[in-house]
Amino acid sequence: MRRPGFSRRAFTTGAAAAALAPAGLAATAVGATAGRASGAPRVSEVKTITLYAEELPDGQAGYGLAPGQATIPGPLLEMYEGDTYEIELVNTMDVAVSLHVHGVNYTIENDGTAHSDSTVAPGESRVYTWTTHAPGEREDGTLIPGSAGYWHYHDHIVGTEHGTGGLQRGLYGPLVVRRQDDVLPDRTFTIVFNDMTVNNLPVGPDFEAALGERVEIVMITHGEFYHTFHLHGHRWVDNRTGLLASADDPSRVIDNKICGPADSFGFQVVAGEGVGPGHWMYHCHVQSHSDMGMGGMLIVTDAAGEAPGDPGHHGAGAAGAGSAHGGAAHHG
Amino acid sequence: MRRPGFSRRAFTTGAAAAALAPAGLAATAVGATAGRASGAPRVSEVKTITLYAEELPDGQAGYGLAPGQATIPGPLLEMYEGDTYEIELVNTMDVAVSLHVHGVNYTIENDGTAHSDSTVAPGESRVYTWTTHAPGEREDGTLIPGSAGYWHYHDHIVGTEHGTGGLQRGLYGPLVVRRQDDVLPDRTFTIVFNDMTVNNLPVGPDFEAALGERVEIVMITHGEFYHTFHLHGHRWVDNRTGLLASADDPSRVIDNKICGPADSFGFQVVAGEGVGPGHWMYHCHVQSHSDMGMGGMLIVTDAAGEAPGDPGHHGAGAAGAGSAHGGAAHHG
Amino acid sequence: MRRPGFSRRAFTTGAAAAALAPAGLAATAVGATAGRASGAPRVSEVKTITLYAEELPDGQAGYGLAPGQATIPGPLLEMYEGDTYEIELVNTMDVAVSLHVHGVNYTIENDGTAHSDSTVAPGESRVYTWTTHAPGEREDGTLIPGSAGYWHYHDHIVGTEHGTGGLQRGLYGPLVVRRQDDVLPDRTFTIVFNDMTVNNLPVGPDFEAALGERVEIVMITHGEFYHTFHLHGHRWVDNRTGLLASADDPSRVIDNKICGPADSFGFQVVAGEGVGPGHWMYHCHVQSHSDMGMGGMLIVTDAAGEAPGDPGHHGAGAAGAGSAHGGAAHHG
Ligand SMILES: [Cu+2]
Ligand SMILES: [Cu+2]
Ligand SMILES: [Cu+2]
Repeated sequence: MRRPGFSRRAFTTGAAAAALAPAGLAATAVGATAGRASGAPRVSEVKTITLYAEELPDGQAGYGLAPGQATIPGPLLEMYEGDTYEIELVNTMDVAVSLHVHGVNYTIENDGTAHSDSTVAPGESRVYTWTTHAPGEREDGTLIPGSAGYWHYHDHIVGTEHGTGGLQRGLYGPLVVRRQDDVLPDRTFTIVFNDMTVNNLPVGPDFEAALGERVEIVMITHGEFYHTFHLHGHRWVDNRTGLLASADDPSRVIDNKICGPADSFGFQVVAGEGVGPGHWMYHCHVQSHSDMGMGGMLIVTDAAGEAPGDPGHHGAGAAGAGSAHGGAAHHG
Repeated sequence: MRRPGFSRRAFTTGAAAAALAPAGLAATAVGATAGRASGAPRVSEVKTITLYAEELPDGQAGYGLAPGQATIPGPLLEMYEGDTYEIELVNTMDVAVSLHVHGVNYTIENDGTAHSDSTVAPGESRVYTWTTHAPGEREDGTLIPGSAGYWHYHDHIVGTEHGTGGLQRGLYGPLVVRRQDDVLPDRTFTIVFNDMTVNNLPVGPDFEAALGERVEIVMITHGEFYHTFHLHGHRWVDNRTGLLASADDPSRVIDNKICGPADSFGFQVVAGEGVGPGHWMYHCHVQSHSDMGMGGMLIVTDAAGEAPGDPGHHGAGAAGAGSAHGGAAHHG
Repeated sequence: MRRPGFSRRAFTTGAAAAALAPAGLAATAVGATAGRASGAPRVSEVKTITLYAEELPDGQAGYGLAPGQATIPGPLLEMYEGDTYEIELVNTMDVAVSLHVHGVNYTIENDGTAHSDSTVAPGESRVYTWTTHAPGEREDGTLIPGSAGYWHYHDHIVGTEHGTGGLQRGLYGPLVVRRQDDVLPDRTFTIVFNDMTVNNLPVGPDFEAALGERVEIVMITHGEFYHTFHLHGHRWVDNRTGLLASADDPSRVIDNKICGPADSFGFQVVAGEGVGPGHWMYHCHVQSHSDMGMGGMLIVTDAAGEAPGDPGHHGAGAAGAGSAHGGAAHHG
């Protein structure tokens, strides 16, 4: 990590927090992070989790880390380069489901597709193995990029052999793979533009952070349409981390980005940096999409917990509000 | 600046030039630029301007720097990192309007949105304050990107709370924030793909430059559709400035770029470099869009003022032609 | 080249190979490549080829390097920065056709457009000249990007003055311009998302490579729609080459990319690296597009020539299968 002694601040807001326990870094944070803070390299880990594919009300569906806890998006999974995930997918639904992932390594038997015979029949379960790696060099001298990135996972079989029905119903979630010295956020929020919804909600959820907190956004798109993701009052770097890699980093700084189905990117902002507290909109900038509700608020609160610009018509909407919808924030 | 002693060449073409006086750098150019040319750092400035939101014929509307001078796009605003703009928006229209900006810093009271109560009623005025900053470093060692970029401003309240009607009518314009050592162009042209128009015109305007002049394009998209911006015979770097930052800059060199609503980017080309004078098309490369008129010419003239490949069917169309449409070029 | 003594492996699969002889590098490979392997700089070349625009069955059309050999996409043209192409376009069709290129240098007389009077009447021919250049520096100290890139060529006159009919029928192809020290692939596959087809086929072709081979993908989009290109089990760097330029390269690593008409990009992957052999899908990730067939397989074979995950319902589909469709692979 760049910041010696850095530790994530406790997450204190939002009833959904319990259901959003950090699947990936929970164990990591205890031992490995502490070790790294003192300069020792982090040891790669093999983590074993169980993921449940479940029906949700109104025909929706989601992934969850425990029975009855499925959310849309599914739980935030986090890895460090070098880690392995062994994920048992338990299918509690009445149709075959699968788990297909972007960005990390897996053999064709872990592809989550029909043609590779790696889907899960109703009532069955199956282990998917994902591995990651740090940057390296090939024998021919060319460089191997590391696995770090803002990735995602999703069903690839419900409805069609491309998982069109599974995606529509909510079977998708974020995966963040970090490099050893990547800066850690205080909070991570996941925003998925899925057809004309945000996280399968007709109106986007609000997210809350205190002034000065390091907020990480994982932005994923699914479905049929292209969108442009815009955040008011904040901007990021259009590169791997969303942060300047060095003073010489030539990447464009942006606050609006076109994205299409299965694109994903992420970035960190310091909440309210240079602009102060407030109700800062995020929204799709395709005009009819924003007009129809594709947006919400990043609520940046001051020391008193207040945030100016409160829209009466937007309702309260604290982070993670709503029963079956998560991915809004996580404890660290 | 990279080029000691560099100064912008006088702009000699186009009747619209007077209406397009450089709002931002007019004052700057006199003192600060000269100072920097001799190596002294530029002093940040606070600039005060008045922007008028006005009705235009055929239901259109625009921003202008003086009464009766509204253009579509609105005037090119330019800042250097560190500068502050205090912009009084005078609303001469019969509906509430606002000024929302991308890329720079502003408090929530300057957001230009309904929920933050920062719009302007008919007949009223209001000051919006924008600030910018140079790249910096946070206490935790992470880097703060500077404000430099090809940004834009637009209404966020006419028609809908996302300004859909204001954008359709023409209430948008370019904002360029420069870093102290950024290379300055000889001419800046603004091209806005706004729904199926270019700068709200059914057929895109033409722009003119002399062979060898440094032409800057500010490309902005608004509305409903995605587009791909293509320029014949010229190409640019897909990074912050559109110019190679160094010999090691890994960015892709492109001549075609997908863009969606509120995306913006900019670049510089040396007119006719390696290809000579000519009528060089720019157009949206979505086939039906170009077929319906979403394009025009970058006319690169030789020493005699001639440019081969003159299309009879495209009309004369010098830079900035057309009554209420501007943003085509500016004096520097 | 980065790899001393590197030479392309012989291409042993696919009947279409003969029709896909490397137009650009055939001559180069013999003398210049050998010379460079020993450290001597490569000498720029002037290459002369003839390109035939021909009718194909079912109303389609294509470019070919010899009479009766037109393919969709057209032949892979390759240049090194500094090379010149003199291309005689022979129009065997009954409508005017042209050759418009992206990325490289050409005077307005070589633009391939109606307004520049550079199209070819039926039964006629015309020479188009393309030049390229290595990176350089201008007198004012700014850098000139080199011509290297994943570019493409296409008709600009059939159907409409933007070549909409020519593109629909198949008059397009890939152009790769390499920098002297760029890494060379073992195989190059071209994938064009043209409206709802891949390479004008209703279902995308399959491509085959042996485990460990360096596979280069040239990805081009044409027509009306935006798409997102996704490849299973492999990922690339979103920069000029698709390979990390250095350990400090801040570019995003991706496996999914939004693209619109006339966008092009390319990258190299080591087939099956970290994931093994298999039938690895590539597809547009717009859900209805993939459901309707916009995809195929990158078949990565093991030492026995086998690849797990063989989809019965996808048919055999080896690289380049299909009569008039090429661009699938080339000898090197
Ligand atoms: Cu949208
Ligand atoms: Cu368009
Ligand atoms: Cu598609």
